[in-house]
Amino acid sequence: MSFTEIVKIEDIKLKDAILLEGLPGVGNVGKLAAMHLIEELKAKKCTEIYSSHFPPQVLIDDDGVVKLVNNELYYHKGKGKNKDLLFLVGEYQGMDSSGQYELCNQLISLVKEMGVSSIFTLGGYGLGKLVPEPRVLGAATSQDVVELFKSADVEFIDGEPGAGIVGASGLLLGLGKLQGIEGGCLMGETSGYMVDPKSASVVLKSLQKLLGIEIDLEELEKRAKQVDSITNQLKESESEVEEKVDVNYIG
Amino acid sequence: MSFTEIVKIEDIKLKDAILLEGLPGVGNVGKLAAMHLIEELKAKKCTEIYSSHFPPQVLIDDDGVVKLVNNELYYHKGKGKNKDLLFLVGEYQGMDSSGQYELCNQLISLVKEMGVSSIFTLGGYGLGKLVPEPRVLGAATSQDVVELFKSADVEFIDGEPGAGIVGASGLLLGLGKLQGIEGGCLMGETSGYMVDPKSASVVLKSLQKLLGIEIDLEELEKRAKQVDSITNQLKESESEVEEKVDVNYIG
Amino acid sequence: MSFTEIVKIEDIKLKDAILLEGLPGVGNVGKLAAMHLIEELKAKKCTEIYSSHFPPQVLIDDDGVVKLVNNELYYHKGKGKNKDLLFLVGEYQGMDSSGQYELCNQLISLVKEMGVSSIFTLGGYGLGKLVPEPRVLGAATSQDVVELFKSADVEFIDGEPGAGIVGASGLLLGLGKLQGIEGGCLMGETSGYMVDPKSASVVLKSLQKLLGIEIDLEELEKRAKQVDSITNQLKESESEVEEKVDVNYIG
Amino acid sequence: MSFTEIVKIEDIKLKDAILLEGLPGVGNVGKLAAMHLIEELKAKKCTEIYSSHFPPQVLIDDDGVVKLVNNELYYHKGKGKNKDLLFLVGEYQGMDSSGQYELCNQLISLVKEMGVSSIFTLGGYGLGKLVPEPRVLGAATSQDVVELFKSADVEFIDGEPGAGIVGASGLLLGLGKLQGIEGGCLMGETSGYMVDPKSASVVLKSLQKLLGIEIDLEELEKRAKQVDSITNQLKESESEVEEKVDVNYIG
Repeated sequence: MSFTEIVKIEDIKLKDAILLEGLPGVGNVGKLAAMHLIEELKAKKCTEIYSSHFPPQVLIDDDGVVKLVNNELYYHKGKGKNKDLLFLVGEYQGMDSSGQYELCNQLISLVKEMGVSSIFTLGGYGLGKLVPEPRVLGAATSQDVVELFKSADVEFIDGEPGAGIVGASGLLLGLGKLQGIEGGCLMGETSGYMVDPKSASVVLKSLQKLLGIEIDLEELEKRAKQVDSITNQLKESESEVEEKVDVNYIG
Repeated sequence: MSFTEIVKIEDIKLKDAILLEGLPGVGNVGKLAAMHLIEELKAKKCTEIYSSHFPPQVLIDDDGVVKLVNNELYYHKGKGKNKDLLFLVGEYQGMDSSGQYELCNQLISLVKEMGVSSIFTLGGYGLGKLVPEPRVLGAATSQDVVELFKSADVEFIDGEPGAGIVGASGLLLGLGKLQGIEGGCLMGETSGYMVDPKSASVVLKSLQKLLGIEIDLEELEKRAKQVDSITNQLKESESEVEEKVDVNYIG
Repeated sequence: MSFTEIVKIEDIKLKDAILLEGLPGVGNVGKLAAMHLIEELKAKKCTEIYSSHFPPQVLIDDDGVVKLVNNELYYHKGKGKNKDLLFLVGEYQGMDSSGQYELCNQLISLVKEMGVSSIFTLGGYGLGKLVPEPRVLGAATSQDVVELFKSADVEFIDGEPGAGIVGASGLLLGLGKLQGIEGGCLMGETSGYMVDPKSASVVLKSLQKLLGIEIDLEELEKRAKQVDSITNQLKESESEVEEKVDVNYIG
Repeated sequence: MSFTEIVKIEDIKLKDAILLEGLPGVGNVGKLAAMHLIEELKAKKCTEIYSSHFPPQVLIDDDGVVKLVNNELYYHKGKGKNKDLLFLVGEYQGMDSSGQYELCNQLISLVKEMGVSSIFTLGGYGLGKLVPEPRVLGAATSQDVVELFKSADVEFIDGEPGAGIVGASGLLLGLGKLQGIEGGCLMGETSGYMVDPKSASVVLKSLQKLLGIEIDLEELEKRAKQVDSITNQLKESESEVEEKVDVNYIG
């Protein structure tokens, strides 16, 4: 007996909207990108999703007030010819396979009712090594979306990612396709070792082109530089250590 | 197909009552505090809750009679202006995430029917080191309860506990809030290494102020001294070992 | 969605019958005892229970024919004043906590319908060391059954087993009690290291007294002697090894 | 709440058909054999099965288009007196015991409706060592099928496989038998260390005789030779290492 409760804070109807998923994952790339966009567009929260597929846990805010872990939807009505956007963010993905399927199926039904007609999922593609110039890799539910993504400098590389896409970013596309919703996944290359704002930033650059909107990336790029600077310091101290070791060996 | 059976030993109606949760957890602080209060107030058992979310296990009493592991409710009708109290105790919490959610939801429905209007959960906050003077930390479902708790010397520290509250103590608050019940959690600081009556004792001191009742803490404080004495012996024998080691090194 | 299918090979009505549970467990004591009794009494299979709580596995008999793993009921109608008996045996217990609860609840409903009015569960009590003269320990659903068991030389020792009884042997008693069926558990002491026919034999000696029947234990005792003989050989070769090692040290 | 969706690409009625199961397993013997047969017979896909018992994962094809992991049915109408065939293949088996049972029960109901009257499951029997001349071992739901299999050079060896058959290859037979469908399992001996086309090839030789059809095995045998050649190179380099080691010892 699983438990899911959908709390509608505001009852929203969108038109031909795009769902942008940014749940936690590799390098938190998708989450960083979606949260940045929510802030820049001043998107508003309309829905909270509580579920027994999340951990049995409350978080505590700075005032000491608890909040049950959840997923949330934020919306932004597009101006002019720009499309309406709906954002899916949260602290966790469903914790087991069956929970992932159930939550994704419920979410797809919910967002279809709200007027979503396509799904873009945002994520990281972990390479296990530092990535100075991350690319954005893509996957999509149809050849049409593949072509659309290519026009936004998204790269498609034979057999990558080899293991496919695991979790909500994959499942929302796979289950969405079964329910007649097209979409695709944007994966920023990342080491996977740490939260990666640079990778989130390149994902957003592709997304700008796809959505025809301007996004101020300054904040993300500042954070990316901080991470780069820490990484470089670590690398330097590592190579100093290596040098000393070499000297010792030679000596 | 999960199984939960609620056995009503006595059909109780309470008025504006407080649920006090003291299930097993870090340092068993919540359980010790709740059991002490049950004994001091001579609270009576009214309900047994059996569930497939507990282990498949019976316990055996001193006469050789078995008892299926369960959770139990005890009640105490408040005298004068004191509030009615309902206690939730037991040998186990639900064993998995989904079981925790299901049990907590069922318990909240049950105690609402019995007349509970707020929930205080009692627990330990594990620090991983000895705590000579444990404080009581708090978290609550609303700013109002935060203020109430502060008036009872409960401390609220920014970003603590960092991981939030996991298990029944958190979930009863989070799910309670969704069902319109306010409440809070009292966490006694504890090493987390052993059962901690001293931490339970400071939690009860805060609870005395919140409930406006007098609780005789002598028994708990005697046990706290025993634990302290054992701990000190261990520390002494440890430092003796260290001294000897030092001597050897010097020698 | 769990799956349980009960196949009735023969539709049996018993009168005031005792269920004897002998599923696999510590030292396979319960299973050995129940299987021996089924053979000696020529009890007949009446029911097969298939369930998704067992492993997804078929076994293969000597002719190459497969059999899905299951639990089975065998019955024996008591002669004269002897009670009707129903045996529960099988290759596995339910694999997880929730499966254990569901299967035990279904079994109790099933055997109540068939005329069972009490449940004796048979098992081993693992001591983690060789037990030359195993005793039979007991636990029961009521003081009455405790007294009955004591009259059959079953021993009740304060606080043993300390962890209670885990699995079907405990759960059938605990859930049976909730459904108004009395019963008890007979636990033969065993090392727990190997299948233990000697422990099964002492359990059956107590059972003989409880049921007022004669059971030929020759076959079990022969197997017990074989196990003893193997154990003694192992012990001798171990002590020889130890001796040699000692000699080497001295030398 | 589990999720299973059956997508009928073509609504097929077969007559007295055989289901051939070739899901992933030991040495991928069953999968290799079934996939080879599907290609040789140009069998057509008629059904896709999606389920929350598979991992939450999409795969990506060479064009960048995603596909939710699933199981699939392919059919081949038999010519003349040859039987209709239905193939069950896919990337995964159900991930847990309960999922295995649920999926197999659903599949059996589905294929019965489509006209299947017997089930042959194909798999590997892992020996944990290289098998130069793999045999085909059998197991069946009845003595009749045992005799049929023996006539196709399938061997039945007392007590093998000792652990029975775990997973879909066993469960489809066990649950099928409960639903009145006869069948058997063909197990090619294999090391279990790598994908084993030679073992798949001997399974297909037995299947040819059982089905009375000719199958071109050239492609499989070519792959078997490649694997043999790699294995031999590994063995040679290993024995060279051993020789050197021996020389060192002697020297």
